[in-house]
Amino acid sequence: MRRAFDPSVYLVADAASVGDRPVADIVAAAVDGGVSAVQIRGKELSAAELLRVVEEAALHMAGRATLLVNDRVDVFLAARAAGAAVDGVHIGQSDLPAGRVRDLVGPDAVVGLSASLASQLPALRGLPSGTVDYLGVGAVRPTPTKKDHPAPLGWDGFAAFAALVPDIPCVAIGGVGPGDAADARRAGAAGIAVVRAICAATRPAEAAAALRVEWADAGAGA
Amino acid sequence: MRRAFDPSVYLVADAASVGDRPVADIVAAAVDGGVSAVQIRGKELSAAELLRVVEEAALHMAGRATLLVNDRVDVFLAARAAGAAVDGVHIGQSDLPAGRVRDLVGPDAVVGLSASLASQLPALRGLPSGTVDYLGVGAVRPTPTKKDHPAPLGWDGFAAFAALVPDIPCVAIGGVGPGDAADARRAGAAGIAVVRAICAATRPAEAAAALRVEWADAGAGA
Repeated sequence: MRRAFDPSVYLVADAASVGDRPVADIVAAAVDGGVSAVQIRGKELSAAELLRVVEEAALHMAGRATLLVNDRVDVFLAARAAGAAVDGVHIGQSDLPAGRVRDLVGPDAVVGLSASLASQLPALRGLPSGTVDYLGVGAVRPTPTKKDHPAPLGWDGFAAFAALVPDIPCVAIGGVGPGDAADARRAGAAGIAVVRAICAATRPAEAAAALRVEWADAGAGA
Repeated sequence: MRRAFDPSVYLVADAASVGDRPVADIVAAAVDGGVSAVQIRGKELSAAELLRVVEEAALHMAGRATLLVNDRVDVFLAARAAGAAVDGVHIGQSDLPAGRVRDLVGPDAVVGLSASLASQLPALRGLPSGTVDYLGVGAVRPTPTKKDHPAPLGWDGFAAFAALVPDIPCVAIGGVGPGDAADARRAGAAGIAVVRAICAATRPAEAAAALRVEWADAGAGA
């Protein structure tokens, strides 16, 4: 059965952004700290390496967070088939088309999609309901961890985009970190996705916990 | 039902080796010329681009050749789900493990695996029967199209390796081309896999036809 998906404090665990620390260690700390979702991203990893990282990370979920795999649907399928606690995939605009991915992973997996351009709206609106569970919308600000994104949206741009896809939760990504939760909530974000704010933190668990508190506080004050 | 798999004249259609010609055009010409198998390799392509190339290439198969996808099992699954004439995958040692791949693609798909090191033999022998349909063994000679391969085997090294895995057909790859069919057959090869000999040929169909004739002649003379 499908588990509840909470994208509110969302770690993108990027293998290229953790320095020489194991990705799974960062994930474990972040989940201990209270992130609600984790995406494993390893564009430079082989499929075998990515599978290993995903299966290691899955050991730390224990039902506390949703675990997603970036791009490699096959790695997700292989990990799931082996019983790992992995919940779905996150795909970009140059990955497999969302409809194809939904067909491959089935109705119970979580599917997220990166989007940010007005030109992508017709295709998004054309997706059958339930094809994607959320959109990763950004970059909100310039960020060094992803070089192929278009011009930063800012919070106004994020809010404008999110308003045009009212049926799909939008998670803010790209240069997002501490101090952003209130702006993100005001802009209509269902969550904040961070890379460096946790991956590059000296104490990833504490960084995650601070974001968790900040998100909750911003909601209480809304 | 599973189609007969003939790896004898095997094109690796490498997106990085075709210059500015469309991969699918090279594939179409090669199949017209008589290759028995085609692998689409596009390490630098996005999944969306690779899927497009695979589905274009599939239009030219018409039951004449086996079509395989390098590394991306998900691209294979997506193409097959959409009804494309695609038959299986070819994986390397750093891709998803062969047993995992067989589980994902099912018993009727073709699965090929790159291998060349004595250190890989225990794992190969430990695979359940039917896990892989053939091995791509090489590089036979130095080649610029794949930079991560170990020291070239030569034909003697190929023959020695193939003799140690008598239950799995071995296809010779790596610097293989015109003039090699007789040596390959003597070394126990089930086929010759070429990249540049067709991808970089001025007339890919004629290059493929010449290899086809050469392979057949080498067999007739054996």
